[in-house]
This record gives sequence, structure tokens and C-alpha cells, in this order.
Amino acid sequence: MERAMSLGMLADSALIAHGRGEAFDYLLGEQTHPFATEAIHQAIAALKKGERPVLCVNGNTVALAGREMLELASRLSCPIEINIFYRTDARIQALQNELNELNQAYDFRVEILGAMPDAEISGLRGPRAKCESRGIYSSDVVFVPLEDGDRCEALVAMGKTVIVVDLNPLSRSASKASITIVNELSRTIQTINQILSNHQPTELNPQYSNEDILHRALQAIREGIR
Amino acid sequence: MERAMSLGMLADSALIAHGRGEAFDYLLGEQTHPFATEAIHQAIAALKKGERPVLCVNGNTVALAGREMLELASRLSCPIEINIFYRTDARIQALQNELNELNQAYDFRVEILGAMPDAEISGLRGPRAKCESRGIYSSDVVFVPLEDGDRCEALVAMGKTVIVVDLNPLSRSASKASITIVNELSRTIQTINQILSNHQPTELNPQYSNEDILHRALQAIREGIR
Repeated sequence: MERAMSLGMLADSALIAHGRGEAFDYLLGEQTHPFATEAIHQAIAALKKGERPVLCVNGNTVALAGREMLELASRLSCPIEINIFYRTDARIQALQNELNELNQAYDFRVEILGAMPDAEISGLRGPRAKCESRGIYSSDVVFVPLEDGDRCEALVAMGKTVIVVDLNPLSRSASKASITIVNELSRTIQTINQILSNHQPTELNPQYSNEDILHRALQAIREGIR
Repeated sequence: MERAMSLGMLADSALIAHGRGEAFDYLLGEQTHPFATEAIHQAIAALKKGERPVLCVNGNTVALAGREMLELASRLSCPIEINIFYRTDARIQALQNELNELNQAYDFRVEILGAMPDAEISGLRGPRAKCESRGIYSSDVVFVPLEDGDRCEALVAMGKTVIVVDLNPLSRSASKASITIVNELSRTIQTINQILSNHQPTELNPQYSNEDILHRALQAIREGIR
């Protein structure tokens, strides 16, 4: 995170948000719980079943799991779209540089979108609404770790399946998303890549209940406080 | 916090630590609970009874409650010592400038120590051990909000009464301190100043149990998660 900060990839508020996540991870015992694994399987199935999946990254996601997100996009043959809350050209550029370098270094050949927005997320205003027509706008499944509540809600309202990674099961993103993975980000993406590389079969579970997942996550935090 | 960051008062890690605190405050409902009020009263009694009390501040404390800490030092007629974990001359200077400006602007006339350390906290090594002989070193009661666990433990081992403000009741500082106020910092200092300005009587409670305070704080967090 400190390297990403010095490279101009993050707003100051990104570090504060990261700290909030750390506190919840601490209360969860810094481990991947069964409710997270279950949501991860559902997320993989949704991404594989999607006709136009997209991975959407902000500064924290690139800082914590840039390489892993590119690996995942490569495995899914889908683009990555940079989409940040406090949008500045300098930050978009810093994130694009970082992803381009990783893309080349590991020969992932993933398409990186986000620098030339030509569409808007319905129901949002200003810079945070901007997106690309070939990416988020026309996607049916969006994997968007660490998303803010407003945008998560707007994407769901557009009829998309929205998958978030959020350590706070009480957050608005967590409760609005279609699938919420309550787990630390880099552990999550590593697990997803591992499941994909093992060609483990994944099927959408028709009984999947995100409400139940969140309930179990809260229970785990309560137990962690003992 | 962002203003303090831009003035060079904070390490990047300070923002992450602030975020961790925010998460706990959120779980506590962002309010001052009775267990915090009880610890606050005990803290005030200890500070007033102390022969050489000192208020010890780091970057986050100055950022969140610099003026309030000066007001408190003025009311107690005691010095403030700047004592930061990742000590650099530039950061010490930035913090001293901020406190000097506030000191002048509000005519507090509080002595600011920390820039010329001439003693060490026993049991610690390197820059984080540095302190002033007229301040922390010879104090009997240290009010040190947001302290790290090592230093808290070392100060207690020197025989001092150590008062911390820590939103995480499970932290090492919280469990090692003599008196732990589990509450957001600026709410805490405002409450202390209000009690002092009202001349409310405060007596050391011989039945005070810090363990009990921490237990009640954990209970409140568990209840907040419902």
C-alpha cells in the first residue's frame, strides 16, 4: 500500500479505507471462512456463465492484487476496467501504468479499459459515473472488489450481477451486492485463481443466499470478539 | 487527517491505523459508552493527583485533537511531549510547528517537549525509545492516546500510570495500560475538557478495574454487530 501511495495510485482516503478493512479482517481471525469460500464458488460460476463479464479495479485493488486480477482476467478472457471513486487523470494514469507493466511482465495480454470513458452508470452523477461502453456499461457480470455503496447499488439497478469483496458485512456494498465475499482481497483472488487453475467444476447454486452469507459473517465476527 | 498528511505530520501507516480505529468506532455506534465515561473519570482523577503528569502526542493525536490536547495541558498545567513511533526530524518539526501555532493562536502557553530528547524509555531501543528527561522520563502519570503496545508496556514497566485512548479493546495497548478509554479521541478529549471546565469533582475509584472496562467494551462491540 505504501509503494502504491508513493506511485500516486491512491487517494489518502484509500489508506483509511484499507485500515477499516484490516480491523474487520483482524476480527475474522485473518482467515478465509466457509461463508467466503461458498461465495467465492458462486462468484466463479457467475463469472464463467456471464456473456460479458468484466473485472473492475480501483487503486486499493491494484495495490493489493494487481497481478492476481490480471491473471484472473486472463483466465476468464475478459477485460479489466479501471474505475475509481475520486477520479483524477493522474491517478488513472498511474494505475494504467502499473497494470500495463504487470500485463507485459507476465504476458497476460489483458485489455485494460477505463482511461477513455464514453458512457455513464445510470443513476450516478459526475466523475464517479464514468465508465466505458465496451466494459462496465455493457457487462452482465461485474466483479468489483472494494466498491463503494452507491456505485454497487447503481450497478445492481442496471440489472447486472455484482460481485464484491468487502470485509465489513454491515456495509452498504456488502448488503446491496448480488454476491458478497467477506474476506481479505489478495487471499480471495489467490483462491479464485487456484480453483480456476485446478479446473474444479463450479455450478451456480440456485439455493445461494447472500443474506445468509452476511449473517454467517456477522456471526463469525461476534465469535472472534470473545 | 488529510490536511495533517499534506503538512507532513503523518506517516502513511498513520492513515491505515486511523481506518482501523474508524471500524471499531463504527461497531461501537460512534458514541461514548458508560465504560468510556467511567475510564475518563478515573483518568482525570489520576492526572489531577499526579505530581508530574505529561500528555504525550503522536501525529494522529495532533491531527485529530491538537487544540483540545493543548487546552487539556493548559488546564492541568503540564507539558505536552511529542513522541512518535516512526521518528523523523521532519515529522517532529511539522508537529511542533502545528502545536506552536495553536499554542499562540489560543494563548495556551503550554510547554512543548520532544524535539530535544535527552533520555530513553527503559526497555526500548532506537528512535522510538527517545524522550525528554523533563517530560515522559520523569513523569508519574502519562496520558498517551493512540500509543503502540510496546511503548505502552515499557512505560507501565517504569512504574508510571499510563492512560491510553484506544478503540480496539483487544489491542496490546488497551490490555497493558493502567486506564484504557475505549472511545474516539476527539470525543474523549472534548469530554475531559468539559468535565474540567465544569469543575466536576473527580476522585480515584479504588474499585476501578480496567479489565472490567475492556470486558464491557467487547460486549458493546458484540452487541453492535447484531
